[in-house]
Amino acid sequence: MPGEDIVRRVLLTVRYDGSRYSGFQIQPNGITVQQVLQDAAAAVFGDRYGITGCSRTDAGVHALAFYCTVDLTSAANRVPAERVADAMNRYLPSDVSVTAARDVPGDFHPRYSAVSKEYIYLIHNSRIPDPFLVNRAYRFPTPLDAGVMHDAAQALKGTHDFRGFMAAGSSVIPGEGRGTIRTVKEVSVIREGELIRLTISADGFLYNMVRIIVGTLIELSLGRIPPESLSAVLESGDRSLAGSTVPPQGLYLSSVDYGGLPDT
Amino acid sequence: MPGEDIVRRVLLTVRYDGSRYSGFQIQPNGITVQQVLQDAAAAVFGDRYGITGCSRTDAGVHALAFYCTVDLTSAANRVPAERVADAMNRYLPSDVSVTAARDVPGDFHPRYSAVSKEYIYLIHNSRIPDPFLVNRAYRFPTPLDAGVMHDAAQALKGTHDFRGFMAAGSSVIPGEGRGTIRTVKEVSVIREGELIRLTISADGFLYNMVRIIVGTLIELSLGRIPPESLSAVLESGDRSLAGSTVPPQGLYLSSVDYGGLPDT
Repeated sequence: MPGEDIVRRVLLTVRYDGSRYSGFQIQPNGITVQQVLQDAAAAVFGDRYGITGCSRTDAGVHALAFYCTVDLTSAANRVPAERVADAMNRYLPSDVSVTAARDVPGDFHPRYSAVSKEYIYLIHNSRIPDPFLVNRAYRFPTPLDAGVMHDAAQALKGTHDFRGFMAAGSSVIPGEGRGTIRTVKEVSVIREGELIRLTISADGFLYNMVRIIVGTLIELSLGRIPPESLSAVLESGDRSLAGSTVPPQGLYLSSVDYGGLPDT
Repeated sequence: MPGEDIVRRVLLTVRYDGSRYSGFQIQPNGITVQQVLQDAAAAVFGDRYGITGCSRTDAGVHALAFYCTVDLTSAANRVPAERVADAMNRYLPSDVSVTAARDVPGDFHPRYSAVSKEYIYLIHNSRIPDPFLVNRAYRFPTPLDAGVMHDAAQALKGTHDFRGFMAAGSSVIPGEGRGTIRTVKEVSVIREGELIRLTISADGFLYNMVRIIVGTLIELSLGRIPPESLSAVLESGDRSLAGSTVPPQGLYLSSVDYGGLPDT
């Protein structure tokens, strides 16, 4: 509240099925995850507190472990960290859940303190739809070769200018000096039955970066573009050489590495 | 259609998320899986055909592999079996999917030809709700011991009178001479992280039998009833000695064994 001192910052780990949300961040039209978290925080802590997220996930994107902070004033300081998750969950809809909560220092920021993030993208590679994967994976009917996709994806590892894998027309977040340079730490593509799972970690991601990478790997597996296409996109920065952007429902923010924070 | 000869019987394998359905079987109030299958069959085959299911699953119960037959007249005989699944799926909602179809002889019956059925029951044994398991598992917050449940469940194996594990007030299906006698072939309880999975196969199941068995195993794991309770329920036939009926959303019909049919 204006004029009141922030005396406590609580870091929440949040898990959500993004199917019915217009992404994380509050916007004028459409219900967002941030909104339902703010409503629950208001019910638990007695007033409406600002919630700061670790990223802006798009509409339909899921999170296995999304991080956000709640800043509390002295007046709302009474719920101990170990009881915050249960308290929040009593007020949250069933598709959003707080899985952990802990106090963090006032200089901790859920976005800027992150060392790296990991995303998972699930492709349901099947002609037959699976009712249990609706909104949870991107169904692609033509057989794909996960081994080919995995091998090609290794070209992404390391520090590159990823602007060719950024949504056309999107802009870099202001104030970030690194521009479109990112470092991909690990990337793997593994088949598990009818599911193909891409896992990618990096020190940051450009807008739609994972979804364009997956679209490019699919076209590569189908032989529509040559195996060296990923390197060509990295070298040229030409979005038109990359594949199309696959849908959001296969994408999961799976973890955020804060370096020093204890893992829960 | 009246007066037309049934010249072809097609067996469908169906997978469904039962969350929004009032069970399989058509009823006056509420949408059912049978209804949406009949509507899709009408669209594919040009008229409304009767669909006969392998069981009547309750509201909220799921199926990994449910079997039902469609009887076709000569006028609707043209879609080859290998194209029936794709054709039906074009008209089905996303929470119901035909995964296989094959022609079967006219004396095949999806219920009476079954040698055994298998059900899975999923318990999400966690204090924290998981958005991805809503309507897909029964969340039970107090820690359970899957080993204790597994060992106790072995008393169910073999041929017994299971009337103590039948919903009070329900009646045996008319015309079935075996009454409440059933043979449980296999039963196991396994922990996979926060999930506890009970798998049980039998030559048939009484109404609510799996859900009452799971409820009894839970109370047994909690020490509320003694380890020998399952035998006591079997010997006495006394429903009041068994545990409560757990909710439907953890229950999946997972397979039906027809003996001679090729597995797909």
